[in-house]
Amino acid sequence: MGESPTGAGPDYEQIVLDVADGVATLTLNRPDRLNAFTGRMAGEIIDAFDRTDADDRVRAIVITGAGRGFCAGADLSGGGSTFDYPEDAPRRDGGGLVSLRVYASLKPVIVAFNGPAVGVGVTMTLPADVRLASTAARFGFVFARRGIVPEAASSWFLPRLVGISRALEWATTGRVFDAQEALAGGLVRSLHEPDELLPAAHALAREIADNTAPVSVALTRHMMWKMLGADGPMAAHELDSRAVEARGKSEDAEEGVTSFLEKRQPRYPNRVSTDMPDFFPWWREEEFTPVEGPRSR
Amino acid sequence: MGESPTGAGPDYEQIVLDVADGVATLTLNRPDRLNAFTGRMAGEIIDAFDRTDADDRVRAIVITGAGRGFCAGADLSGGGSTFDYPEDAPRRDGGGLVSLRVYASLKPVIVAFNGPAVGVGVTMTLPADVRLASTAARFGFVFARRGIVPEAASSWFLPRLVGISRALEWATTGRVFDAQEALAGGLVRSLHEPDELLPAAHALAREIADNTAPVSVALTRHMMWKMLGADGPMAAHELDSRAVEARGKSEDAEEGVTSFLEKRQPRYPNRVSTDMPDFFPWWREEEFTPVEGPRSR
Amino acid sequence: MGESPTGAGPDYEQIVLDVADGVATLTLNRPDRLNAFTGRMAGEIIDAFDRTDADDRVRAIVITGAGRGFCAGADLSGGGSTFDYPEDAPRRDGGGLVSLRVYASLKPVIVAFNGPAVGVGVTMTLPADVRLASTAARFGFVFARRGIVPEAASSWFLPRLVGISRALEWATTGRVFDAQEALAGGLVRSLHEPDELLPAAHALAREIADNTAPVSVALTRHMMWKMLGADGPMAAHELDSRAVEARGKSEDAEEGVTSFLEKRQPRYPNRVSTDMPDFFPWWREEEFTPVEGPRSR
Repeated sequence: MGESPTGAGPDYEQIVLDVADGVATLTLNRPDRLNAFTGRMAGEIIDAFDRTDADDRVRAIVITGAGRGFCAGADLSGGGSTFDYPEDAPRRDGGGLVSLRVYASLKPVIVAFNGPAVGVGVTMTLPADVRLASTAARFGFVFARRGIVPEAASSWFLPRLVGISRALEWATTGRVFDAQEALAGGLVRSLHEPDELLPAAHALAREIADNTAPVSVALTRHMMWKMLGADGPMAAHELDSRAVEARGKSEDAEEGVTSFLEKRQPRYPNRVSTDMPDFFPWWREEEFTPVEGPRSR
Repeated sequence: MGESPTGAGPDYEQIVLDVADGVATLTLNRPDRLNAFTGRMAGEIIDAFDRTDADDRVRAIVITGAGRGFCAGADLSGGGSTFDYPEDAPRRDGGGLVSLRVYASLKPVIVAFNGPAVGVGVTMTLPADVRLASTAARFGFVFARRGIVPEAASSWFLPRLVGISRALEWATTGRVFDAQEALAGGLVRSLHEPDELLPAAHALAREIADNTAPVSVALTRHMMWKMLGADGPMAAHELDSRAVEARGKSEDAEEGVTSFLEKRQPRYPNRVSTDMPDFFPWWREEEFTPVEGPRSR
Repeated sequence: MGESPTGAGPDYEQIVLDVADGVATLTLNRPDRLNAFTGRMAGEIIDAFDRTDADDRVRAIVITGAGRGFCAGADLSGGGSTFDYPEDAPRRDGGGLVSLRVYASLKPVIVAFNGPAVGVGVTMTLPADVRLASTAARFGFVFARRGIVPEAASSWFLPRLVGISRALEWATTGRVFDAQEALAGGLVRSLHEPDELLPAAHALAREIADNTAPVSVALTRHMMWKMLGADGPMAAHELDSRAVEARGKSEDAEEGVTSFLEKRQPRYPNRVSTDMPDFFPWWREEEFTPVEGPRSR
């Protein structure tokens, strides 16, 4: 039913990317392995986000898993040496590359946890905008039970999502916990019966697609994430002074106010691919700098 | 019934400022327009905070709206060009100027949402200390539905109040939501029947006015806000080492401990206008720097 | 029943440190004074953390109070001049020294609030990982009611634990509140009947001790706390790329994965005293710098 986001369908092996009616659905697709994470899957997810960013038809992205799991974490079929990377392996954590790509998305990301999400299976979803879960989902930040440490930049994301105490409890016990505990802790915003989960995620995506200006949404997403790292409100005031001025004179603003006053659905003319304001991006991309000597954090 | 905070009553057009029994009540007062926000209203709110800061009788501020609304957001009577500012307009967002003024208040600020608070009507309240709502209140971070972006420095404040996921969901959908969702998300701390809202806000203001030392409260407010931007606890330890030393030898500390031991109401001698410790303010005021080139955030 | 953590039992006067079965229990022990805080108590707590860090048998620490109180705050037996320190007193807040020591712990810290925790009695616990409370516990950030200000670096910790609004409400009113309000605000993660409190705290400590690798836990704790001060996820990605690489080739990782695949209890060989990776600590220790002139925060 879905159309490929680029005309020619991408030939993914471990995920499926489907675009329909303004919403891209990215399905982790190794159901026989509970969608366990691999280097190939990481590359395919990153490629899929490059496509959804470039495709103006995509207004929001829903991530879910095929079969009864969401993602069981790293594929442990390598046994005890699973995390013992070869000497010449890249020195960047693969889960982190996925997290940073989700973080950089120009479109909002909604995660629908259809089943267990463990290790990188949950940490790579932390930069998404909203997480929903089936009542059958389970979660685990199990790194300390495997002798390793939290990854995918989760030491930055998780305390900001669920508070530092909850993050520390989950990560220092390595406990696997149920959907109810995830809801109580704020890891997911709502629980759903298994067959109502994906409809709920798509309804939320539709709410965005039907009502909001794409350029406004892309800017909003980056303003909020970036300002989580700002040391006071002045940085935000400086930024939104510029952004309100740029967007205030846009055709989208005219359409937004007019359609509201006329009580009709808006049809925003601006497109993310061509109409982002000239000050975007306003930040310098950080380069990856390996940890060698002492740092301030 | 109330007295003016400065003797001569300020001649505001769009707000009312009333001081009674240690509590200032600031009422947004364009009830025929659901108290829609204007440049004039912004100026009057800022002036009111200058007065409450200077008036030692004021121990806390309650902000509410006249009539059935709190604040409907920007006045859209200008139609489609509402946000299209003239070329020579100031390059600073008016909502942000209000937010920064509330943020800088020396007295705690309590917001009583008596009805709908939309757009700048809610974002300008985010630097308040506590938000209470009537069960009839509604809220909307509707910017993406008007083709613009969140303002009033809300990209800094909102994620810190309700978490980044809730902030992103509200701002990327632009949804108008009810008081119950605001409570569940942590935007407001309690709901009240409409006729019990203002009494509840005033009771909280009284709790502050009756029991605490004004200079301690002013310092506490700024210590907590500023330390939200500090990169570790050492900055707080350095600051409160100095602050505890300065306040520990104050007449207020003597009265605070003595009245506690004597089980009586305290009467603190120190005043905000004259007795702030010599290290206050300990921070350099940030200057507004327009966003031109790339930044680190 | 417990054994001393160092062989020879430390001769503490105001606390008791007991190690049994991998868990250290630190009991504040001035029950006739509701365990009111003194300079001596601060020194003993700090010494106890030096011991638990050095003792590989200790996998987690539980802090509680003897008798019916947890800690009544500063000992006010000095009357009105309690906080008026002599001119030659050290210029560092004693509660802050305890907070920073708890923050630096290599082992997770669980607080069991058996009764009232007021002033420094609660602020010094904020850097712990998890806080549990008896239904009989009460709490108060009462500083503004004593004419002083929050200390023990609580202006940094408290808003990060309970949100800035809740922190401001508790600190500007100085209110003493019950266990239910502490739970609703997120100050504690669960309530327990008085005689079930310590067993619950020990069960959580056991969950850590029985299942996780000590070096992984020590790293995790410091990664999460430090990344609360980082301005974006790249710092975490850089750090966990290095940490996953170092830990991935460890004997602990081999044992963690193998024991998981074999569905048996793990026996991790690495020890905190000898096997922390060479990049730990990766941060520069901050020196205490008195607040003299203007600062950026």
